[in-house]
Amino acid sequence: MAEVTLLSLPASPFAMSVKMALIEKGVEFATVEENYRASGKSELLVKVNPVTKQVPVLLHRAKPIWESLVILEYVEETWKAQGTQLLPGDGYQRALARFWSNFVITKTGLLIMKRVGDEQLKARDQVLEMIRLMDSEWSKPEYGKPFVFGDKLSLADLALAPIASWKVTFETLGKFEFPDARTCPRMALWLDAIENHPTVQSAILAPDLNLENANIIQKLIKDNKIKF
Amino acid sequence: MAEVTLLSLPASPFAMSVKMALIEKGVEFATVEENYRASGKSELLVKVNPVTKQVPVLLHRAKPIWESLVILEYVEETWKAQGTQLLPGDGYQRALARFWSNFVITKTGLLIMKRVGDEQLKARDQVLEMIRLMDSEWSKPEYGKPFVFGDKLSLADLALAPIASWKVTFETLGKFEFPDARTCPRMALWLDAIENHPTVQSAILAPDLNLENANIIQKLIKDNKIKF
Repeated sequence: MAEVTLLSLPASPFAMSVKMALIEKGVEFATVEENYRASGKSELLVKVNPVTKQVPVLLHRAKPIWESLVILEYVEETWKAQGTQLLPGDGYQRALARFWSNFVITKTGLLIMKRVGDEQLKARDQVLEMIRLMDSEWSKPEYGKPFVFGDKLSLADLALAPIASWKVTFETLGKFEFPDARTCPRMALWLDAIENHPTVQSAILAPDLNLENANIIQKLIKDNKIKF
Repeated sequence: MAEVTLLSLPASPFAMSVKMALIEKGVEFATVEENYRASGKSELLVKVNPVTKQVPVLLHRAKPIWESLVILEYVEETWKAQGTQLLPGDGYQRALARFWSNFVITKTGLLIMKRVGDEQLKARDQVLEMIRLMDSEWSKPEYGKPFVFGDKLSLADLALAPIASWKVTFETLGKFEFPDARTCPRMALWLDAIENHPTVQSAILAPDLNLENANIIQKLIKDNKIKF
């Protein structure tokens, strides 16, 4: 097995964030793509992550690291001297980067995807409220642009960047359009920069493939065959 | 206002963890205790944390830091040279510390408290399963004892240490007893060390006061007057 191996799942936004971090750091890595639908969880995944049994798992010299934000911190620390610095140099900005990376996951994450019907529209409204909040906060002087803290990707950007793959899916399922430059100028600037960043482009699943996957999973949720 | 001020709530386990971190670091701090029940959220809280409007908030030189795990990292970084080192020196153990501190909050946290009836008993079973998992994992060679990584408190201990205040409440509401030394020897050793640690004792709300608060809140949940 390679010195650095990532257990991933093609549509997992959490795995996409880790891929981006490794690319930004210039770390060579092998990828093992899980396929839950075809065959359930792999023996390897259950063996290296007996606690949550979820991707992403980073195997570094055979030691497993679990949970995307924990892995992002580990990548930044382990390869500190090379590639992009994923945490700002300023201590207060580091705290803000950690806050936002956790916020987008715990406060909304994949809610639109996990719900159906009216609950899905409620989740959509919650996501819209979050986008407005971010637009307002990220306009303050302690932040930069076009990314959250300036012209380089940080941990805060990486946690949210998989939206470049998921946006079409969210818009289609939630029956809405993401706020544009008139209503949320800061977020529109950020999203444009993210969607055009080569690291983001090379780490995400194509938006149409993502929607295709999502439609299959939505059908399984509606038929009560799976539950998040 | 003091150079370091903590906005807290007496029964908040997240605020308790931050208090412990500040005490372990030897940082002097003032505390402003919120009282949601008497008067709703304070103007100060809404002003310094417009995003989640929740405690704990650490004000350091008037800059607000939000979310307990983000604050713990900030405290460790800002006062790195003094008091207890809250993150292990080894990179892999640091990742494990971050994983467990997040796990106890996101995978169980206050589920027993937030539910009533059958849902509460389901949450109890989930907590028991988590304790068994921790007992098994923390017995592995990459961990120490009696605390998660040895004889000093780390971030992983601090996230879970408020159980010293909440245990009686969980046991009473969930109608169970925490696993003892026969079934979960590693957790029993840990809990004993935590309950007797002077920093933990001085940072928590007394267990009987915690239960009294919890009973009032449980009545509000049952009467549909509040919802988590």
